[in-house]
Amino acid sequence: MTTKKTALVLSAHAADFVWRCGGAIALHARLGYEVTVACMSFGERGESAKLWKEGKSLEEVKAIRRAEAEAAARVLGVHRLECFDLGDYPLHLSQDDKMRLVDLIRAVQPTFMMSHSQYDPYNTDHMYMTQVALECRMIAQAWGHNPGEKVLGAPQLYLFEPHQTEQMGWKPDTFLDITPVWDQKRAAMEEMNGQVHLWEYYTRVAEQRANHFKRNSGGQAGGRDCRYAEGFQSIFPRTVDVL
Amino acid sequence: MTTKKTALVLSAHAADFVWRCGGAIALHARLGYEVTVACMSFGERGESAKLWKEGKSLEEVKAIRRAEAEAAARVLGVHRLECFDLGDYPLHLSQDDKMRLVDLIRAVQPTFMMSHSQYDPYNTDHMYMTQVALECRMIAQAWGHNPGEKVLGAPQLYLFEPHQTEQMGWKPDTFLDITPVWDQKRAAMEEMNGQVHLWEYYTRVAEQRANHFKRNSGGQAGGRDCRYAEGFQSIFPRTVDVL
Amino acid sequence: MTTKKTALVLSAHAADFVWRCGGAIALHARLGYEVTVACMSFGERGESAKLWKEGKSLEEVKAIRRAEAEAAARVLGVHRLECFDLGDYPLHLSQDDKMRLVDLIRAVQPTFMMSHSQYDPYNTDHMYMTQVALECRMIAQAWGHNPGEKVLGAPQLYLFEPHQTEQMGWKPDTFLDITPVWDQKRAAMEEMNGQVHLWEYYTRVAEQRANHFKRNSGGQAGGRDCRYAEGFQSIFPRTVDVL
Amino acid sequence: MTTKKTALVLSAHAADFVWRCGGAIALHARLGYEVTVACMSFGERGESAKLWKEGKSLEEVKAIRRAEAEAAARVLGVHRLECFDLGDYPLHLSQDDKMRLVDLIRAVQPTFMMSHSQYDPYNTDHMYMTQVALECRMIAQAWGHNPGEKVLGAPQLYLFEPHQTEQMGWKPDTFLDITPVWDQKRAAMEEMNGQVHLWEYYTRVAEQRANHFKRNSGGQAGGRDCRYAEGFQSIFPRTVDVL
Amino acid sequence: MTTKKTALVLSAHAADFVWRCGGAIALHARLGYEVTVACMSFGERGESAKLWKEGKSLEEVKAIRRAEAEAAARVLGVHRLECFDLGDYPLHLSQDDKMRLVDLIRAVQPTFMMSHSQYDPYNTDHMYMTQVALECRMIAQAWGHNPGEKVLGAPQLYLFEPHQTEQMGWKPDTFLDITPVWDQKRAAMEEMNGQVHLWEYYTRVAEQRANHFKRNSGGQAGGRDCRYAEGFQSIFPRTVDVL
Amino acid sequence: MTTKKTALVLSAHAADFVWRCGGAIALHARLGYEVTVACMSFGERGESAKLWKEGKSLEEVKAIRRAEAEAAARVLGVHRLECFDLGDYPLHLSQDDKMRLVDLIRAVQPTFMMSHSQYDPYNTDHMYMTQVALECRMIAQAWGHNPGEKVLGAPQLYLFEPHQTEQMGWKPDTFLDITPVWDQKRAAMEEMNGQVHLWEYYTRVAEQRANHFKRNSGGQAGGRDCRYAEGFQSIFPRTVDVL
Repeated sequence: MTTKKTALVLSAHAADFVWRCGGAIALHARLGYEVTVACMSFGERGESAKLWKEGKSLEEVKAIRRAEAEAAARVLGVHRLECFDLGDYPLHLSQDDKMRLVDLIRAVQPTFMMSHSQYDPYNTDHMYMTQVALECRMIAQAWGHNPGEKVLGAPQLYLFEPHQTEQMGWKPDTFLDITPVWDQKRAAMEEMNGQVHLWEYYTRVAEQRANHFKRNSGGQAGGRDCRYAEGFQSIFPRTVDVL
Repeated sequence: MTTKKTALVLSAHAADFVWRCGGAIALHARLGYEVTVACMSFGERGESAKLWKEGKSLEEVKAIRRAEAEAAARVLGVHRLECFDLGDYPLHLSQDDKMRLVDLIRAVQPTFMMSHSQYDPYNTDHMYMTQVALECRMIAQAWGHNPGEKVLGAPQLYLFEPHQTEQMGWKPDTFLDITPVWDQKRAAMEEMNGQVHLWEYYTRVAEQRANHFKRNSGGQAGGRDCRYAEGFQSIFPRTVDVL
Repeated sequence: MTTKKTALVLSAHAADFVWRCGGAIALHARLGYEVTVACMSFGERGESAKLWKEGKSLEEVKAIRRAEAEAAARVLGVHRLECFDLGDYPLHLSQDDKMRLVDLIRAVQPTFMMSHSQYDPYNTDHMYMTQVALECRMIAQAWGHNPGEKVLGAPQLYLFEPHQTEQMGWKPDTFLDITPVWDQKRAAMEEMNGQVHLWEYYTRVAEQRANHFKRNSGGQAGGRDCRYAEGFQSIFPRTVDVL
Repeated sequence: MTTKKTALVLSAHAADFVWRCGGAIALHARLGYEVTVACMSFGERGESAKLWKEGKSLEEVKAIRRAEAEAAARVLGVHRLECFDLGDYPLHLSQDDKMRLVDLIRAVQPTFMMSHSQYDPYNTDHMYMTQVALECRMIAQAWGHNPGEKVLGAPQLYLFEPHQTEQMGWKPDTFLDITPVWDQKRAAMEEMNGQVHLWEYYTRVAEQRANHFKRNSGGQAGGRDCRYAEGFQSIFPRTVDVL
Repeated sequence: MTTKKTALVLSAHAADFVWRCGGAIALHARLGYEVTVACMSFGERGESAKLWKEGKSLEEVKAIRRAEAEAAARVLGVHRLECFDLGDYPLHLSQDDKMRLVDLIRAVQPTFMMSHSQYDPYNTDHMYMTQVALECRMIAQAWGHNPGEKVLGAPQLYLFEPHQTEQMGWKPDTFLDITPVWDQKRAAMEEMNGQVHLWEYYTRVAEQRANHFKRNSGGQAGGRDCRYAEGFQSIFPRTVDVL
Repeated sequence: MTTKKTALVLSAHAADFVWRCGGAIALHARLGYEVTVACMSFGERGESAKLWKEGKSLEEVKAIRRAEAEAAARVLGVHRLECFDLGDYPLHLSQDDKMRLVDLIRAVQPTFMMSHSQYDPYNTDHMYMTQVALECRMIAQAWGHNPGEKVLGAPQLYLFEPHQTEQMGWKPDTFLDITPVWDQKRAAMEEMNGQVHLWEYYTRVAEQRANHFKRNSGGQAGGRDCRYAEGFQSIFPRTVDVL
């Protein structure tokens, strides 16, 4: 049994992993985790308004978005960026696509996984991604799926922060201090040239979550200092030896 | 700043702490935590049916229940057992009683707290206890309450397992392996002579939760072995440096 | 052990029992149940607008409302109408008032109980009534409360239909056919002279619920015929020997 | 109109019907119901870890699981066991598969139906099964589907107990006493040789549910005796003539 | 930028738009909105029991239902009735069907949209329709979908009133006074000859909602008079300049 | 009947109205509303940590907090600031205090009301305030409460934004553009010298909500420009003549 630590981020569109969990990626990379990011699409149709307004073609949009994702992944220390290139708005995975994702999950054997919120009336690709994440996690656990391969254990599935959290019914139960890697997250965000207005937006998100980190680590008594944080919702219970 | 680790369990009736979190108490005591248990009542009216059927008087019932609670606390390694003796069915805390509880919270400065589920249509004392726990936790955090005293930080409030979990809307997010201290929990339960039928009931609960512990620590791939466990629901988010 | 069947309706205001479960009362009375109705108040301040506009005094309003409640109770075949006369808007029960209610519960030993929805932002008396119902049900079950008295079993608590059901989070799980006693319910409603506009309103409610009764008893295939029905939400699970 | 009583259990994987509602099946069979069990798959890939570890082939696994299901069905008194053999992890029903299920529903004309919980993040086959159950129930009710056939009425859909109930959001509203048929359920479970560790697990479940049966049938006053029980959640409201 | 006001109603079956939002349609038509109604099916299989009992063929049923829908649309002042004719029980939209719906959404550029409740265990077509509505709304907003076309803004999606609202988890947040157009709604309902029993049912619904309109517009103090109303649940937050 | 427009804000602690709805207050004041703010306490014990650390006495803390609240109210254009001075941590209203609040509600006759979220495990004063708000709103509507006085209509109760929205189960359904009065809100916040760290925090909140305002007013197509916004959750349904 190897002691290698790994994580797998499932991102419906190319940039999602940057805004929503770029800090977690960079931090765990620094801690020695091999973090794999799987982007199902480049967000070419639905999340590239600026490029379309400039008159780019579909292939150009995809190439630009791919390049941005790759650049951001480099900055964050991503071990492997896997672009499934399945199209977006709507995102759809065929049975074969799902098997490809199961193969990836088994290859990575993630210590933990990450994906979108379970509900999102603004963006059905997001909730579809998480539904697929749960389905493929289950298949990867089955001893009878490609017998002989190493089956998946029971990794946590963290749901990263959606836009307009309250509308998505997303409730964070874990705040992660990303102060040590904030510069990397900001730099990765700045690779996303088509969504400049989000740089400040997600900087503010990180500052607000840092406030919440402090409140929950110490209240008015003065919690642990923290300047930037990310929030996550866990799907599965934790198993511990001490509370 | 002291590094002493402490925990505080708020129990509406004398025996609740044994059935619901006896394992967590014994385990943390073994880990060096000073665990304080505060019983608001002896459960004398509502949870001592056997004694009443035997014709005992109120004072006799209370004395017997107190003795049982003390014996169980000893077995579990409880640091301090505080009996508020406020009566039950219904439990009610006056403003003075609440201030006494705030004083205790501040004296203990718990690393974490424990109490009942937030909803319980069978037993309104239970949900009232948790409502009071939240109120007193808030007061203990206030710099203007008894200025000069050390204010409370932001301890987690774990809700221990109620009877008929699904009817209470209780959902565990944390499973604790109590195998190392199981013998102590069983012994503590056996001090509760008035509720013999619950010995086996809560032994089965611990076995079922151990199954859940295993599932969530490793799935079909074979999780961490565990023979007895307890489940808890967290009220507040965690703050972490690694997921 | 007696085989007498009994029911206990807890009504915050005098007229609630008529609109919300008059059919259930009349039907069970006809089936041989002794149905006791406990009205905590006459609804004198909050539900007697017409009388206040006519310039009646508080005592007059109460007397008129009492007379209406008594007349309705007679029409419905109520075994005992107990008016606690505690005032309304807001309704409040002191510890003594609660003990009086516990005494009544024990005296009746109800096969089932009825009260309001658990949430009502329009009328906090209603949700307070149900909170008290659960608390007093618990006390009545305690062997140590007035030892020697017969303790209460585990009667179902049905929540009858509130106004604006969706705003109250009320979801019926049981539809009762009240067609055989409809004339009695209508006649009882017509005793409520101060709320004439509600006669037609609650007649329509009964007709709509009859439609739901038919749908759920047979769907498009043609369910059991039913012209008037009432809906109820159960707090506790049922225990059965056949599904 | 025949008075024959029938039930239909929809089970995603071959063994689900044994653990989750074997008692209900045996009890209703004894009461004269013709109980049909439809297994969509044998659970060959996802729920046969032991067989795969032994190096069995897919066909061997399926044959063994089928034999176990048949043996269990015989012990429980199942009237008809229908194996759809559609594969698992993931389970998927084509439009034709659904029509086959609709045909079965119409042929059985069940008095009540049973299936899985509506949410299950561990096992998406389970929640998919229930989604299909609702869809096919609806189609079977349509007068324009295969006109001339007898349409379905409005049978209750009971959701049987999932593993880790709280994580599934499953809340039982009905407890069924299965003491009279416990020996059959235990014997049926013992036909499941690949999941020996679940024999004791589900025996404990039945004992815990019996405790809940007693609490809800009589509380501290002493409810109906019951040694083994099963819990169910109802999707649709009941229609009754007495509460 | 045109100032034309438009609305788009997505109806799973031909008659849904009449019962559930006929008043809103007629009212907004009168206010100058161009209201488009898109019926995915005629409800030919699942909601035409009377016609099937009369022995009509599928084509006859569809023709009759289409004629009824057209007549009702005329009475309500519908600007455009688009019948997708995709079949019902179950309703299914292929990728092409969805693109057709996206085209329609873009052509209409609705100020607001309407569809079914998000949950309906009785009728899975209904909840599927709303799921598709959200997906197609998202696609219509994408700059990369058919680049060059005018993209959709952010219209509200109102969920109209389902049958048995409480079972569907539907909670109205908006009541619309349809008194001025009631005669039109009633006349449109009377075009639905196959569902005569629903005429009175939905008349009563409108009367009950008018009562709720009055309560919420003025309480006991006497709200705005209103004789007929419809209720709607909003999916998205409103953006306003005054509360 | 006067056409005067009025609003009433119920604030548990002195500063709450500034952070949470200062924009709404200033905007409506500018629109001609008379806005009354009722502070139940000065937040002297629980929300004045900085002052206590400086060694101020209770009276000094209260005086400073009162002065800050008055200064902020002036900046926002508050019509009337009513300080109930009831103490905090915990806040408690006696029956007399509630009657005083009812008198105020009746005197103001608010077009709309505002208060805290309905759940707040960090701060039980907040949820208690809203519970009291609903109770007192109900009493103010009663014709039999101080007969002869003008009864209250049915004003909306908006819940303003709590800290850590997701933990409070608060979901905004209304975003208000406060850009025109932003300078006033910022200036009012800067009167709160004891909570300097919150100036930037709530500035970021306003910027994030402006982003949400834009998304919901126009999506990717470009919504209404907005630089600062506040969010609110409505308790009651709206009654409208156009959607």
